[in-house]
Amino acid sequence: MSIPHRDPSTVNPLAWRGDALWLLDQRLLPEEERYIECGTSSAVVDAIKRMVVRGAPAIGIAGAYGMVLAAREAWERGGSSWREQWLDDVAALRDARPTAVNLAWAVARLERGAAALDGPPAPALLALAQQLHAEDLAANHRMGRLGAAYIAPGSTVMTHCNAGALATAGHGTALGVIRDAHAAGCIARVFATETRPWLQGARLTSWELSRAGIPVQLITDGSAAHTMRAMGVSWVIVGADRVAANGDVANKIGTYGLAIAARAHGARVMVVAPLSTFDPATADGASIPIEERAGDEITTIGGRRYAPAGVEAYNPVFDVTPASLVDVLVTEAGALERPDTAGIAALLAGR
Amino acid sequence: MSIPHRDPSTVNPLAWRGDALWLLDQRLLPEEERYIECGTSSAVVDAIKRMVVRGAPAIGIAGAYGMVLAAREAWERGGSSWREQWLDDVAALRDARPTAVNLAWAVARLERGAAALDGPPAPALLALAQQLHAEDLAANHRMGRLGAAYIAPGSTVMTHCNAGALATAGHGTALGVIRDAHAAGCIARVFATETRPWLQGARLTSWELSRAGIPVQLITDGSAAHTMRAMGVSWVIVGADRVAANGDVANKIGTYGLAIAARAHGARVMVVAPLSTFDPATADGASIPIEERAGDEITTIGGRRYAPAGVEAYNPVFDVTPASLVDVLVTEAGALERPDTAGIAALLAGR
Repeated sequence: MSIPHRDPSTVNPLAWRGDALWLLDQRLLPEEERYIECGTSSAVVDAIKRMVVRGAPAIGIAGAYGMVLAAREAWERGGSSWREQWLDDVAALRDARPTAVNLAWAVARLERGAAALDGPPAPALLALAQQLHAEDLAANHRMGRLGAAYIAPGSTVMTHCNAGALATAGHGTALGVIRDAHAAGCIARVFATETRPWLQGARLTSWELSRAGIPVQLITDGSAAHTMRAMGVSWVIVGADRVAANGDVANKIGTYGLAIAARAHGARVMVVAPLSTFDPATADGASIPIEERAGDEITTIGGRRYAPAGVEAYNPVFDVTPASLVDVLVTEAGALERPDTAGIAALLAGR
Repeated sequence: MSIPHRDPSTVNPLAWRGDALWLLDQRLLPEEERYIECGTSSAVVDAIKRMVVRGAPAIGIAGAYGMVLAAREAWERGGSSWREQWLDDVAALRDARPTAVNLAWAVARLERGAAALDGPPAPALLALAQQLHAEDLAANHRMGRLGAAYIAPGSTVMTHCNAGALATAGHGTALGVIRDAHAAGCIARVFATETRPWLQGARLTSWELSRAGIPVQLITDGSAAHTMRAMGVSWVIVGADRVAANGDVANKIGTYGLAIAARAHGARVMVVAPLSTFDPATADGASIPIEERAGDEITTIGGRRYAPAGVEAYNPVFDVTPASLVDVLVTEAGALERPDTAGIAALLAGR
């Protein structure tokens, strides 16, 4: 099954077709573009855990459709007492991955949407999930324009992991800004960190950017500081998995080191994240749960083990960049320079 | 062929046996311990370029033995006019890799040693190469003791790439310090960065440390800043490929970013390098040639390509850490805190 995006310059990581959620299996990219069908909420949970779909906004949207599937299953099993059955699936969806808050946000939004429903819940919840899906795409386009306004002509920029169409409803957060800045003629070159251990930069970001005709060069994660100095990087542009009330940003492991290096070189740091990524209930970065995954994601690459038998790895997959290292935080409600608690509260007040 | 080290806790990356240089093929570790025979100087050049042997001091020693082979070949071809023939091979050896100065240093030392020779040059040059080999091992043991004196009990340390027995005549520079600090009961844990693209941390450092019974955990290069903050790393301990007159340090790509992150966290940076790694003719780091290798070392891992076809990579394999970020520079002639031009000149005066 091939699922083209409405905008041919971008790509669809997920779509509702027939009675099921279809997910582009991002573990197979760029070698193979294969969509897999998730017809049950447990299939969605499994796909999120195994990183078939990744990227905070995309996980949130997948979770919303998972809620639709869970409601349908609960109704088929329990009829009008469907809500009791639903709650277990709701918890499993919300807890599939801990760091990106978009998932919990989407689950909560669908829960609220179900509160007043009478009769079979799936149709109304599907409409809500599709609304959330469309809102994310619109937010990306708005953020792309707002962020691109900061990028001067001839800029060399760096991005980390994949905050592109694949991580969202399309267009992308960080890559949305880069797409729009490139369309405005302002991007000389993009350095994409390969982003170990999952190589999202090598596999996904370089794929998206080269398809869009944007000049991209891959670097190892360890090359970032040298590349900033040698190549005159002016912006580091990244997405986020959770933004705390004070502006601390959880994002893919390695972001924090890039932000420290950027500050040392006079490069600026732009974080691009929709309001669904903000968590006002979390005071600061120290309170954000950081997912640790299995060590064999590091010791093994492509099925081959590189470290000796018995050697273990420490595999935190996110880190926290303090607000003090973020120069601009771009949301669909506006761009906030030097983010802090008051500025973020003002942005969220309109939500 | 198995070539045990005199000290069973360490490993022999290279040895002279019979009439040839035997090199442990470090590209195959840890899966396979296979020594390959280099019976000609061109075989040594090739092995250095293809990273059969790596690590600045080990490359220097291999180059010295390569000079012996080149002299023997030149004598066999040209008799008493051997020096003319020799010069081409000398240049090829010296230029096999550009950044580590130990290679040029060893080549120059053998050239000086050949100046007054009469008759077949190989026996005298072999004795000189073996002397240089033995001196490196002694220097490592001396540096190990000097560096370990800085490590407090219960320390968590981080190292990058492999500056171990495999990179030297044995014992290691950075890993020599860690070995001695561990023997003194001062090492709680070592974090080893995997060190893309060649994974020397995953394949070599974790292998050396686990064989020595030293607790090691692998991390991705991008995890370093988070690990420093979360795990209380007190020292980052690395080797060097070239130290400029002012104390700027060229070392494996990624070192510079680690040093910036260390400074941001109050971790200290120790560079461990024998005097053969110092290049007083290079004023500062900006003058050190930084080797760039093929992009497919990044786009491809273990023979499998991860980046899409057509996407290119920027692959500098060393970077420069400014002296201002180095807290202690450990040499066999002494440890120098806050290294600068005057301090380095004083160290080198005794060489």
